[in-house]
This record gives sequence, structure tokens and C-alpha cells, in this order.
Amino acid sequence: MSASTPSVGDLGEARLLARLAAASPGPPRGETWAGDDAAVLSVDPYLLFAADGLQEGVDFDLSYAAAGDVGWKSVAVNASDIAAMGGHALYLVSVLNLPPSTSVAWVDGFLEGTLAAADAADARLVGGDLGRAESIAVTVSIVGRCTRPVLRSGAEPDDVLCVTGALGGSAGGLRMLQAEDPIEREHPLARRHLRPEPRLAAGRALAAAGASAMIDVSDGLALDLYRLLEASGTGCDVDLDRIPLDPALGSEDGLDLALHGGEDYELLAALPATRFEEARDALDVPLTAIGTVTDGDRMLGDVMLDGEEGLGWDHLLDR
Amino acid sequence: MSASTPSVGDLGEARLLARLAAASPGPPRGETWAGDDAAVLSVDPYLLFAADGLQEGVDFDLSYAAAGDVGWKSVAVNASDIAAMGGHALYLVSVLNLPPSTSVAWVDGFLEGTLAAADAADARLVGGDLGRAESIAVTVSIVGRCTRPVLRSGAEPDDVLCVTGALGGSAGGLRMLQAEDPIEREHPLARRHLRPEPRLAAGRALAAAGASAMIDVSDGLALDLYRLLEASGTGCDVDLDRIPLDPALGSEDGLDLALHGGEDYELLAALPATRFEEARDALDVPLTAIGTVTDGDRMLGDVMLDGEEGLGWDHLLDR
Repeated sequence: MSASTPSVGDLGEARLLARLAAASPGPPRGETWAGDDAAVLSVDPYLLFAADGLQEGVDFDLSYAAAGDVGWKSVAVNASDIAAMGGHALYLVSVLNLPPSTSVAWVDGFLEGTLAAADAADARLVGGDLGRAESIAVTVSIVGRCTRPVLRSGAEPDDVLCVTGALGGSAGGLRMLQAEDPIEREHPLARRHLRPEPRLAAGRALAAAGASAMIDVSDGLALDLYRLLEASGTGCDVDLDRIPLDPALGSEDGLDLALHGGEDYELLAALPATRFEEARDALDVPLTAIGTVTDGDRMLGDVMLDGEEGLGWDHLLDR
Repeated sequence: MSASTPSVGDLGEARLLARLAAASPGPPRGETWAGDDAAVLSVDPYLLFAADGLQEGVDFDLSYAAAGDVGWKSVAVNASDIAAMGGHALYLVSVLNLPPSTSVAWVDGFLEGTLAAADAADARLVGGDLGRAESIAVTVSIVGRCTRPVLRSGAEPDDVLCVTGALGGSAGGLRMLQAEDPIEREHPLARRHLRPEPRLAAGRALAAAGASAMIDVSDGLALDLYRLLEASGTGCDVDLDRIPLDPALGSEDGLDLALHGGEDYELLAALPATRFEEARDALDVPLTAIGTVTDGDRMLGDVMLDGEEGLGWDHLLDR
């Protein structure tokens, strides 16, 4: 980093917070956002509450992820959890831990991406905190609301299993970003990885169409399908040929990336068969039926899913 | 770590999450906590929403902090933010990032401390996430509620400035923990540092007694006093002799630790002078008047506070 680029260690926490506050929009009358001990908000029940983080060197690498990509994704992965409940995203708090040598320009870019993703999710950044760390780590928490939460546990035999959009693109994009030089950050697969789009409107439309169970596909379809079926106590028959693959992927391993790659942030839902067409017509993204909920085994093609291990991305397991 | 102590990398995320879920209490009817994409909650307005984190090597050191201390403090620092608004703590989400070599016993101890602090704050742990990191990092977010939020910005000239409990003990405890061998984790000063007690009941009593402004003393009295006055656009006259020092501190530098040490998690409030005695009688901890809000300069003894820098703990500034 050149001497002409100020670092966050040069500015310190107070001046950096003031800079972030100046760049963020303010609260409506009657609410208080950043700058006090806690944000003060006015919300309807049900409330949804979740949190998720990104770590440099684990979830992203600064060699290919721009500051704005990290900010965007830190919000998008949380908004995706609200989408998977059929809810509206409302409020975000972002805790950013940084090495003091991080450039202030990086933090500005991070905030820009954070606010752009918040805007896209129709949510407000209402607070946060700064801390020191060896490498960059961001944890975002989100509050949302919904009228009828769609849990993972409600799938019933004979429901249709369906997914929004297309799968495998994010893992394909990650592979491209890690392998290519120069990096094509604007390639459609790279965009899928760096700037995932949470399916908030689709999640609400699926809830309105009577979805019985829903989960976001964050760790690969195989693992997230297993989680939904396990929570519901049901089996499935999924037809591998019907799984929608990202059209920008090559044919040779697209299915493998869709099943085990992760980070697509599409939605997997179970739906009464009679409601599928209504749901498909109401969505702003494609909806594809990939199989049926059963009271038998969990069959993904001709493979039986009999446990979580090895199906997808485990953040801790030594491999 | 011995081969007989399993690490989180041996277990992996799924089995560790199942273990944590089994040790946590479950939700009341109609709510959903951990195990879905987001917790589903039923809450009154106003809602309070905040988040704060602890980093190994920055905010704690495993040489003196037990796993349970880290869990306790990660909740307590957040509950303290709710206390400083005059609110009730309701719900917590904890995101824990770990090196895979961390022992499962450490995680069990962490959870035990987390749940004990949640219990003490009358709050529920409703979700969380696990991730991989180079060193241990925990970020907790909290949702609370209140009927009338006490902001930092409401202090008026002639209000009494008062603080709960006693100050400087946490910084004194940290110094002791870092210097002594063997470490006396049960010493009152060490307990102040490792297991701070958020002043939730006192915060609500101060709100009920008409507190005009309030902040928790997390970064030293000097800096947090400055923040409250700056937000209120007021000055002060504070009498150094009246600042309540932790009785377990020696006399030689107790005042310095109280002003600049941080992490006491007491409350600093401004209160109409006519309400001070009522407030003092209603509190479950001592309340001490230390000075007066003015429309003049910000005088801490005979030192004028004219900016944040150097007053207390800045998490990022290079020193």
C-alpha cells in the first residue's frame, strides 16, 4: 500500500466511523440508527433474525474480490436467509474487523457494496461496529419480518420439489476467479460468485403460493436438499436431468458444481403439486420442478442421501 | 492439544451444530430459533438492535480467559448496549469463527458461558453460525425492546451526571491477568474484567426516573462522557473526586484506569436534578452523582475535553 493511501490505522476508529456515518442514509422520524448504543426500530411481528459472516482467506480472497464485492456479499448471504423464510428484509447491522493497515479506500468500497446490496434487498443499514483483526472479517446480522414463516420442516409427501433460477454458476465462477489471469470479474459466472442476488421476491411469492418448506441453496443442492428433508422427516425422488444448470457452465461438470459447489443463493422449496403452475407464473425468476417429496428414501438420481457428511461444504471439517 | 481431546476439525460443522443445539434450550410455541434459515420471533415495538464482537489476541487472550469467560463477555457487552437504551434484552444470535484445531471442550465451555450470560440478561440465544478462522472470533448480535429509548443526545444543562457502580476495576483486572503468574481468575478485579455484569435493571430504572441521556461506559469514562456530551451538544463540570473507583483498586492510579481503561460496562446517565434521589433509591446498584451538564466547556476536573482522540480505547488507531 503506497504512503499516499491512508490506512484505517492512520485514521482510527472515531474518524472512520464518522466517515461511514456520513456516507450512510439516515433514519426516518422516530427511529435511531448508528451512533447510539443500539438502533431503535419500529417493526411488526413476526420478526426474523439471522447472522452470517465472511472471512478473508476462507470465504473470499482479496486477489479477486473487490472491496465492494465483499460488502455486497456480506449483505446478500443474510438477505438470502430472509428470502428462504418468505420474508421481507428490514434492518442490517455490520461488524467489520480489519488489520489497521487496510486502506481507507477499501473501507469506502466495502461500504458502497454494503449499501448497494442493502438497497437491492430493500433493507436499511442501521448500525455496526469496527474492530481490529489479523485479516478482514465481516459479520452481518439481519432483522426481517413476515406474515407466515416458511420453515424447513413442513414438506409433505407428494409435494413438488422446485428450485429458483439456475445452479452451479457460483462455484464455476469461483474456479474461474481462482485460476484465471487476468481475472474477468465481469464474466457472468464471476458475477454469480461475487454478487449473488438473494431471491426475496421469489421467496415471498413461493410463500404466498403455499410453499410447505423452503431453504436457500448456500452449501450445494445435495446438502441443502438433505437438510430440508431431514427437518421435514420425508424422503424424495429427484431427477438429476431436471436440475437447472447455469447456462454459462460447460456441460462436463455443471451437475457436480450444482450439487456440491455451493453459494448459489437460489431457493429450494416444497409446494403442493396443485400450486406449482401458479407459483411459477408469479415468480420473477424461473422455477423448475426437480422431483417429488416422498415418504421413502432420499433419492438424488440413483444415489441415496443417508447423512450430511460429504454432501457439501462443511466450514470446519479437516479434509 | 492431546489426541484424546477431539477438535472441531474432527467433528465438522454439522455434528458441532447438533451438539450446540442439544445443549441449548428450545423456543416457546409459535417461535422457531436455531436450525432454520432465520429465527422467527414475536416482539413489541420499539425494537433495539445492536452487535459487537470479541477477537482473540485483541479483546481477549486464551492464556487468561477461559472459554466460558469469552462466551459470557460476548453476550454481556451486547446486553450492556441494550441496558444503555433503558431496554429489555430479548434475543441473541452468536457467530463463532474458529481454527479447526480448537478443542470441542473449548466450544462446550464457550456455549456454557454464553447461555449463562443470556440467562442473567433474561435473553434467549435463538441462532448462530460457525465458520473457520485463523484465530477465535465471536460476533454476537442482540435484539431488545423498550417503551422509551434513552438516547445519548438528550442531556440538558443543569442535569446531574451520574454513574452506576464503580469504575476502573476491569482495566485493573486486565493488568493483573496479564502480569500475574499463577493467574487469580477469582480475584474481584479479574472477575470484573472476565465476567462484566450489564446494568439492565439499572438502565430501565434510570429510564423510568426520567434519564435524559445514557451511554454504557465501555471505552473509559473520559471517552464515553465525551460521546454523550457531543451527541447532546452540551458541556459539563465533572468533579474527579466524586468518580466512584473500584474498592479493590489501589489508590495510585485508580482514577486513570477509570477515566481511560475501559470495559467497566457501567452506565453514565444525565438526569434532571430533581429526579436523582428517586433514581438512586430505585437502583439495584449504587448511583453516584459526578457532576453537572452545562452549556459551557466540557470540563473533566480541570482538563477540557475538546475531541475524542487520546481519551480512551480506539480499536484501530496505530499507536
